[in-house]
Amino acid sequence: MKLAVFFSPDEPASADLARRTVVIIDVLRATSTIVEALAHGARAILPAENIEEAVKVAKNVGRDAALLCGERGGLRIDGFDLGNSPAEYTPEAVGGKLLVMTTTNGTSALLATSHAKRSLVASFFNLEAVAADLASREEEDEVVVVCAGREGRFALEDAVCAGALALRLRNHLGRRLEPNDAASAALMLGARYSRSPARLLRRTEAGKQLASIGHAADVAFCAEVDRHKVVPELRERQITL
Amino acid sequence: MKLAVFFSPDEPASADLARRTVVIIDVLRATSTIVEALAHGARAILPAENIEEAVKVAKNVGRDAALLCGERGGLRIDGFDLGNSPAEYTPEAVGGKLLVMTTTNGTSALLATSHAKRSLVASFFNLEAVAADLASREEEDEVVVVCAGREGRFALEDAVCAGALALRLRNHLGRRLEPNDAASAALMLGARYSRSPARLLRRTEAGKQLASIGHAADVAFCAEVDRHKVVPELRERQITL
Repeated sequence: MKLAVFFSPDEPASADLARRTVVIIDVLRATSTIVEALAHGARAILPAENIEEAVKVAKNVGRDAALLCGERGGLRIDGFDLGNSPAEYTPEAVGGKLLVMTTTNGTSALLATSHAKRSLVASFFNLEAVAADLASREEEDEVVVVCAGREGRFALEDAVCAGALALRLRNHLGRRLEPNDAASAALMLGARYSRSPARLLRRTEAGKQLASIGHAADVAFCAEVDRHKVVPELRERQITL
Repeated sequence: MKLAVFFSPDEPASADLARRTVVIIDVLRATSTIVEALAHGARAILPAENIEEAVKVAKNVGRDAALLCGERGGLRIDGFDLGNSPAEYTPEAVGGKLLVMTTTNGTSALLATSHAKRSLVASFFNLEAVAADLASREEEDEVVVVCAGREGRFALEDAVCAGALALRLRNHLGRRLEPNDAASAALMLGARYSRSPARLLRRTEAGKQLASIGHAADVAFCAEVDRHKVVPELRERQITL
């Protein structure tokens, strides 16, 4: 199985995703939040490109059934029910609900890969669950891991998470895993950092920015490894288990 | 001094390069070839976006004074004097000449950063010379290292070379060097690989592709560290020492 990692969501544009399984990673914080929400009983997550679209979708769904979720500049959007802190997404808050979500980097990275054969959502919270799912489909020619990054740029926490996922996959597949250049780099970053992701996350640009606006607890929380056994999948603009 | 690394030439588009020194790296092979050519007495290198432009520029300069240089698909362009193998660029071949050069990734990465305050050319061949130049201008607010990559994507050899350069810079500046996320990743890749770049280069996508078309010797050659003490600089579309 080939493993292609892309450190920014713009890179795979030319890749033929329609025949490939794609894994999207946005550790701080969109994919951590999505994993947490679905593991805690949310019915589905509907990613929206921007605030206007999110409000419209929530209206269509019916405001009673739906929660408006997301951030701009790391902070909860005015008038929205929830921000982008995974700790907010408790069973009490999200159980049985539809969540309409828009974030700065994660939701657009998700929507950009929605034409993939399969589109999975990963974070440190569900590393092993995603790795086992991918390894069980060894007949796949190529798996593509897309890091959401920060406004089109490299984000260290996503690269390390991609590397941690690649290490798990190599545990399953051994030498049958063929990494591209970026996956080789991710494997090395993963080997160096994935035992202490909390320390790493604090040092990243996103980690420092979140701490500066009072979200240091989120940064520590998003470093929890294998907290859940779920594999969220995006199908027809809805993310479900 | 802040150090920002970009793993692909599209990333820094939004950065304000006009106030910054930029270093461009395309280890396999454009920036290795440029360093070699200038160290061996070429008068100047004129990067051209494409073959047509290269031919036009060479005509304007006068075909006696100029050599047409470059590759497509790794191979010398039909009718051109030299390809993109640094070993071709001997003092006998290039001494006193103007070289008009077009390559798949390197020359367009160079031209894309030509509005920078200073635009320097680096490869393993001139690591220490470039690091010392940058360190001597410690008053600079931020240095930007741009990896040419492969068709807009991450290239491991460029990332490791950027990391090796960052390590040298840290030797000069210690904790006064403030890396962005990608520079932190590059530092780690550099620490892991820059002692044996030849082994690394053979394993990269570009290294394998070059070996497959008969250029394995170039891959080994481009891994030579500190072969020259020159710092090529791009000014008004000409690269000189």
